[in-house]
Formats: sequence, structure tokens, C-alpha cells
Amino acid sequence: MVRVVILGSGASLPTLYRQCAAVAVQYEGDVYLFDCGEGTQLQWRRAGLRFGRLRGIFISHLHGDHLNGLVGLLQTLSLNDRSDSLRLYGPPGIADYWAALGRYQGVRLGYPLEIVEAAPGLLLDATSHRIEAARLDHGPPTLGFALVESDKPGRFDVDLATALGVQPGPLFGRLQNGETVRLDNGQVVVPDQVLGPTRAGRRVAYCVDTRPCRAAVDLASNATVLVCDSTFGSELTEEANARGHCTAAQAAQMAAEANAQRLVLTHVSARYHDARPLLAEATAVFAESSMGRDLMEIVL
Amino acid sequence: MVRVVILGSGASLPTLYRQCAAVAVQYEGDVYLFDCGEGTQLQWRRAGLRFGRLRGIFISHLHGDHLNGLVGLLQTLSLNDRSDSLRLYGPPGIADYWAALGRYQGVRLGYPLEIVEAAPGLLLDATSHRIEAARLDHGPPTLGFALVESDKPGRFDVDLATALGVQPGPLFGRLQNGETVRLDNGQVVVPDQVLGPTRAGRRVAYCVDTRPCRAAVDLASNATVLVCDSTFGSELTEEANARGHCTAAQAAQMAAEANAQRLVLTHVSARYHDARPLLAEATAVFAESSMGRDLMEIVL
Repeated sequence: MVRVVILGSGASLPTLYRQCAAVAVQYEGDVYLFDCGEGTQLQWRRAGLRFGRLRGIFISHLHGDHLNGLVGLLQTLSLNDRSDSLRLYGPPGIADYWAALGRYQGVRLGYPLEIVEAAPGLLLDATSHRIEAARLDHGPPTLGFALVESDKPGRFDVDLATALGVQPGPLFGRLQNGETVRLDNGQVVVPDQVLGPTRAGRRVAYCVDTRPCRAAVDLASNATVLVCDSTFGSELTEEANARGHCTAAQAAQMAAEANAQRLVLTHVSARYHDARPLLAEATAVFAESSMGRDLMEIVL
Repeated sequence: MVRVVILGSGASLPTLYRQCAAVAVQYEGDVYLFDCGEGTQLQWRRAGLRFGRLRGIFISHLHGDHLNGLVGLLQTLSLNDRSDSLRLYGPPGIADYWAALGRYQGVRLGYPLEIVEAAPGLLLDATSHRIEAARLDHGPPTLGFALVESDKPGRFDVDLATALGVQPGPLFGRLQNGETVRLDNGQVVVPDQVLGPTRAGRRVAYCVDTRPCRAAVDLASNATVLVCDSTFGSELTEEANARGHCTAAQAAQMAAEANAQRLVLTHVSARYHDARPLLAEATAVFAESSMGRDLMEIVL
């Protein structure tokens, strides 16, 4: 199962309905956290997520609305008796930030925290899936992230294999695993003869905060879902871009260019008590747009 | 009006029902914040408090559960177009902490923030009321705080003044203000002749986190209400004191020694899903005990 849970869909000013940036992405039993605004640990509880499942935290940039929940969450994991090491990925400066908190707040954790100041590219490879980063266009060094499921082999055609003389049993498994096999009669069967086309893995891209940019489009290329910065409506396009953000329509344009299957708008400014106009502007450009909201779940 | 609003009644591990430490104390139009755990700004909104009323923030110590909401709150005040300067009081180290956040997070505020590394004694004097600090016994340097209303003159006895020959008018006001007056017939009337006994001002004491200690009892002396560390029940007395905290019964003992009128238990460990046993232990020692809960209001 791949599941995306929007923990905070708000921008720099949190409200009771849109808390600060945080998105949990679950791949089977592993959960990854993209950004950790203030209050993330309670949103995590509200969403029914389990702290023990957390495998990595990825911070896009060091602005408070993406970061201020980090210390509390890390301390809570410790108070919950975590002993497994945890990787924390973020832009340059995150190690110094953590060291300063240790110095002034006396933070002590009961598990190893490995801090990775991340560069664009492959960050984590878990065989069945991986996490990649791209450099976005926000202002301070900012990373976008994508959870990418590994491609799966095509479907095995039992009838075709039987017709070619392959006996059910170990040979079926070897062909499914991509091995060429030789039958008792000397005939050779290659996987392509009995497997359908390779099936592309699912892809969840998280591009927050950013102006419209090529790197975000590439990160979201053919994504199953793109969760994207959508701070303002079109009436504030200039301000959005001056501040390093997208409008809803620009997020939709990126989703279209990326050939994404679905767009979820997030990082919505507190000024929009009613965010339907933003959704309408996005949908006009890219039909499969949804308005993100706190605790929304998307199961892929 | 003096009003106490418990914004967070929990300890180091916040739950959905007990968030991290924060208490708002309102004196007429001025609101003071004692501690600022993660999520305080949203609790402030939930309580219906207005950001524009905030006159000072007082941090007891630099542990995360008393501090992690500070950056977000200060940024939110800025996004709300605050221009009035704000005083932030805390223990030694709070200025360096803030400087480090500025360095790594790029925090910029649109109003002057004056940081005061506070010593025990008088911190703020607003004529009608003042705020005092005491050094508690927790471990790291930790301050307790008390909002103290100035004593008020005794009630003016109109009948007595008239009998003494004082004509209603300006002389009444001067006597009420503590001035001696001379009547047309040459007779002198001093305020003590027409005023009742001085009325003691109200006092709200906040002693979190602390072991039982003399300084907390003194700070809470004759308090209208004492809001006190009550992390554990009596079954964990040793652990409570080893970690620099009080049990509910110890908080009650301090309230009794201080001759406080009322005790509110707070900083309750997440392990107590049902905190009634703690309240029972406190009430057995000090009858006027209440269990603090998030968004509880006490109007004095």
C-alpha cells in the first residue's frame, strides 16, 4: 500500500484548519515524513499513524513553518522508547541547527539520529522503493522529494508459458524473476516471451516551497500524485513568485507538464478561508486537481 | 478582570488532551504568557485570546516542552502585523537560543523583540500590577512567575466623611487618593479616618517545573491561585523528585504552606489517562485543589 496523509496543508501562518507543512508518505510498513511544521506530532497522532513506523524525516528547508515541529517530534520518539536509528535529511545548515538546539535546550535522544545534509539525487534506496531529491526554486536552499516505487516486472502469462512447454514449478519462478531457462528438451525460453511489459512503479512527489521550475516538473514526471505549493490564487501571482511560491494555477500547470495523474494543492495561505476559488483555478488547467486539507488521506 | 487560561496542561510528551506547558494570565486588557510549548499559538486561538493583547512572554526554562512553540508564535505575531515591541523574559541562554534560530532559520520579525535574561525579583511593573520571578528547583536554571496586583486603598466611608464635615466633591477624591485635606473650618481630615483597611491585590503564581521548594512557597504566598507542577502521583514520588518535579500531593502541600486560596494542578504526565487519582491525592492535603485541563479558564 502507498498512502499519502496531509498532516498540515497551511502556509506560514497556521490556523485551526490548516496547520503548518507536513506530509506523511507510507510505503507498506514504512512511513516517511516530508517536512515537520509546528504541531506535526499531534497531527501524526490524529491521523492514527504509529511513531514506530517512522523510517526517515525529510526537511525541505529551514523556514519555521516546515521545521518548528521537529524538536518536539524527535523528543517524543525518544520518550516512546525508540531505539532504532533515524535518518534526518535536510538542506545544508540542518546539522548546525540541531547542534545549536542541543547546546541551548539540552536535547538528549535515546536513539541514534543520523543527520544527512542532502544534495539533489538519490537519498535512500530500500529495494522496493527509493527517495529522491531535487533542488527547488524558493530562495533559501530547498529540496523537493519523491518516493519512487521500483518498477515491477510484467505479468507472467501462465497459458503462454505452458504452451511453450514450461512445466509449472521452479521454472515459472525463475522466468518471473527475469532469468532465462532451458527446458529438458533443450529449448531456451527467455522472460520476454512470457512476461508482459514492465509495470512502472508509483511515484509521489512533494514540491513545497517552490516557484514554478523545471526541477519540480522533472521530480513529478509521470507521478501518481504531486503534492504541490499552492500558496495563493492568480490575483496574487506576482506576490507568490516574488516570495518563492506557486499559485494554484501554476501548480496545475506543472502537474500537466509533468504528466502527473493527480495534483493535491497544499501550503495554502491563511487568507483563504474558502479555498474553492484556488481549486477552480487549478482544475481549469489540470482536471485531476484536489484541494489538500489537514488529515486528508490519498491511498494509491 | 484577572483571568487564568491553561493553554497546555501536559508534561514533556504532549497528547491530544494535554498539550505542552503554556498559561495565559490576563490583567484587564493585558495578557501575559507563561511558557510556550509546541502548539501554544493554536491553543491561544482556541481560547479566543487576541494576539494584539500580548504584553510579555515569560519562559521558565529552556526545555523543549516549555519553549518549542516560541518561534512559531513570534513569527505569527509578525505576520499579524504587530509593530509594538515585545519583551521576552527567560533564563540565561535564551538570548543565545534566539540568536541561533535567527542564524539557521532566518527568522525576521516586523517588531522589536527585547530579550531579558531574567534574575529572581521584580521583572515588570505596570502600576496596577507587576510580575515577579523566583528561582525554582528543577535542574537547569528555572524561574517561577507571579502576577501580583497592587494593593488597593480601603473602601471610602461616605457616611463617616460627611459626619466629619467633608463636603461631597473634590475633597472626597483627594481623601480616596490618600491625601490629607483641610476643611474650610480649618479642621484636618486624614485618609485613615475615612478609609477602611488596605485591600490586598490578587496574586497568580506559576511554579512549573520544580521540586517542592521554599522559593515556590514564597512566590505563592497568599496567592489567589497557584498553578503548580504536578507531574506524577504519590506512587512515583522518588522519580518525580529525581527528575525535578512535584507530585500532586507535594503541590498541595506547597499550596497549604503558602496559604494559597486555590491550587490548579498542571504539567501532568501523559501516563495518566485518568488524572482523578492525582486530584484525590491533592485534595486530601489541600481542599481547594482543581485538576488543570487544556483551555480551562479561571476568572478571579
